[in-house]
Amino acid sequence: MVRGRITRLVVSDVRFPTSRGRHGSDAMHPDPDYSAAYVVIETDACDGIKGYGLTFTLGKGTEVVVCAVNALSIHVVNKDLEEIVGDFRGFYRQLTSDGQLRWPLWKLLVDMDPHQLLSCIDFRYITDALTEKEAYEILQNGLRGKKEREEHMLKHGYPAYTTSCAWLGYPDQQLKQLCMEALKDGWTRFKVKVGADLQDDIRRCRLIREMIGPDNALMLDANQRWEVKEAIEWVTKLAEFKPLWIEEPTSPDDILGHAAISKALAPLGIGVATGEQCHNRVIFKQLLQAKALSYLQIDSCRLGSVNENLSVLLMAKKFQIPVCPHAGGVGLCELVQHLIIFDYIAVSGSLENRMCEYVDHLHEHFKYPVIIKKASYVPPQDVGYSTEMKEDSVRKYQFPQGEIWQKLLSNP
Amino acid sequence: MVRGRITRLVVSDVRFPTSRGRHGSDAMHPDPDYSAAYVVIETDACDGIKGYGLTFTLGKGTEVVVCAVNALSIHVVNKDLEEIVGDFRGFYRQLTSDGQLRWPLWKLLVDMDPHQLLSCIDFRYITDALTEKEAYEILQNGLRGKKEREEHMLKHGYPAYTTSCAWLGYPDQQLKQLCMEALKDGWTRFKVKVGADLQDDIRRCRLIREMIGPDNALMLDANQRWEVKEAIEWVTKLAEFKPLWIEEPTSPDDILGHAAISKALAPLGIGVATGEQCHNRVIFKQLLQAKALSYLQIDSCRLGSVNENLSVLLMAKKFQIPVCPHAGGVGLCELVQHLIIFDYIAVSGSLENRMCEYVDHLHEHFKYPVIIKKASYVPPQDVGYSTEMKEDSVRKYQFPQGEIWQKLLSNP
Repeated sequence: MVRGRITRLVVSDVRFPTSRGRHGSDAMHPDPDYSAAYVVIETDACDGIKGYGLTFTLGKGTEVVVCAVNALSIHVVNKDLEEIVGDFRGFYRQLTSDGQLRWPLWKLLVDMDPHQLLSCIDFRYITDALTEKEAYEILQNGLRGKKEREEHMLKHGYPAYTTSCAWLGYPDQQLKQLCMEALKDGWTRFKVKVGADLQDDIRRCRLIREMIGPDNALMLDANQRWEVKEAIEWVTKLAEFKPLWIEEPTSPDDILGHAAISKALAPLGIGVATGEQCHNRVIFKQLLQAKALSYLQIDSCRLGSVNENLSVLLMAKKFQIPVCPHAGGVGLCELVQHLIIFDYIAVSGSLENRMCEYVDHLHEHFKYPVIIKKASYVPPQDVGYSTEMKEDSVRKYQFPQGEIWQKLLSNP
Repeated sequence: MVRGRITRLVVSDVRFPTSRGRHGSDAMHPDPDYSAAYVVIETDACDGIKGYGLTFTLGKGTEVVVCAVNALSIHVVNKDLEEIVGDFRGFYRQLTSDGQLRWPLWKLLVDMDPHQLLSCIDFRYITDALTEKEAYEILQNGLRGKKEREEHMLKHGYPAYTTSCAWLGYPDQQLKQLCMEALKDGWTRFKVKVGADLQDDIRRCRLIREMIGPDNALMLDANQRWEVKEAIEWVTKLAEFKPLWIEEPTSPDDILGHAAISKALAPLGIGVATGEQCHNRVIFKQLLQAKALSYLQIDSCRLGSVNENLSVLLMAKKFQIPVCPHAGGVGLCELVQHLIIFDYIAVSGSLENRMCEYVDHLHEHFKYPVIIKKASYVPPQDVGYSTEMKEDSVRKYQFPQGEIWQKLLSNP
């Protein structure tokens, strides 16, 4: 087992000036600078094991997250590694994040037995939707065919869709060009940002549907732009383009609103997808109880831990709702692939109606970037949660002292 | 009108070591150090007008709030006061808090006409529950009898209840003593913390019910301690003590859970109260839509602004649910009295089933502390939102450099 103590925690404010190219722009976020609060944890273990973690932000306010990390570090620094591994749930209750001590994460999770997995989960507030016993049964059933599914993942990877072609700020010509290239690369599932202007949306959806043809999948993402009634009316006008789902039609906190939208759009064959801004398992529980969504989008950073995501994966399984993770940002693809590969192998056991988001930027800053083959995520083989950044990137992009920011700030 | 610019914003981390006396202890927070991130805003206006604000915290992590305040200060410092007053809604959308520029706040709100009040409110995400037109009609109706209600407030104050007698960590003897004193002081409404141990709760509720008699009001507060089913079972066992409400029976995010508890407890005549941890108007909207509560507890700090609370007061009026504010902490009584006095005069127009929480500690650190007479809040006459702290208190309790903390930390 692991032996040693956590000796040091270093957190950096790393920002990438993505707003200059309008990468990541949507109806609510016209100019994000994709950024991260990036944490390195050092230990005195004899193998010199280190931990890496990050959370994704949009630039401003990253220093607040850095401050929050420092505030929580008292629960981490000097902690004995064995103690953490011996009581994941207890450690989790102290924190909003966890240690992830073995490598790679998806394999660690897959190899944990049902009891160990359950010991990571805080069932407080969700027992009316999923009891510990039910969760155990799901995991126990997941053991059947597990080996074969792991082999399937290693051979074929986890199916992905791309959001890189149709950011809201891209002109039509760029959209067409990117879409053409993506089709050539084998992509079959495409997401378009909508919600700022209906006529623009109609034109862009028509354009992309014509390019990808009737058999490829088209998803829409409104990034919380609408009122409930407005969402229904707007999406109804886009129904002719046969979108699979409308993502984040309204406030991410509005469970009952999502339920109303789901009900209204069901006859059009359009599902509701949400989750990237849901802040805990209690919100997900209610989205499932209220039949508010057809696709559940976990996020590796928003929920603040692997543990919390485990409870959501299990609830989704019980309610028979496919999980289609949110990714992109900084490092979200790197992180969430572990969770969804685990989900397939040990929980859902199915790829039907399932796919993981992919966005093609900022991977070059990671030491172990995602590998995409035939529009699928290849399961990572490197240690950890794939969160380690290149030292050079951290140095250059550190805010505000890194050379990139020094240059930008002195010459805006 | 106001003329001038905001020239400076200073934020302090102020902590009071309340955990030593177990003041404020409950089932989930055994040892809070009641604290505040305290903000002073300076202007170059010719009358030297200053602004004061704070948010309440439990000690650890206050430095994160301080950091967040500093992050937002770019939207405040150098801002023209006339611009802010001229577009409250626009300023509000930039921020999570607002300026409060005239004095006292409740009177400013009461004197604003319906259009001005509406211009403070962000209706995004709530139009399915309350349109701007409906809100206008509520405020327009509120004009009838407004003068009389203002006079009533000035003469009699706003009815309060006390939470100071029965913190969970107080031994029975202390509870009895405090309860006896409170009765002597004219208190008629009492709240008891419950949820850690059923037998303790039964003993404590019996004790306090015997002391206050059958006609005074008794409220219970579980501070989110239970699962949904557990809450129903536990409170059912306390029904014999005739509590008016059970407060925060489960996760504050669990709208559907609160609805299930409300439905189950209604036959026993026990209402559900919640709101102090609800983070925005969308959550309150759903609690109202789902019939999840019988008493709505706004909090002056949790929602992050006066503006957000205005939208909640109006929704509560539409759904005919009485607002009974959460208070206590550091300065929450000082702040929220303004909102509830405004609610009575201009929105609800009623005192039926309504009362504002009162807790009797830490007022001595405020320059304009609340005044309680005959168990009622006397409307403040001093300028502002009653948030200004004594300079001496800020200096002494600043964390960690203040003399109180220096002493405690060097001699724990």
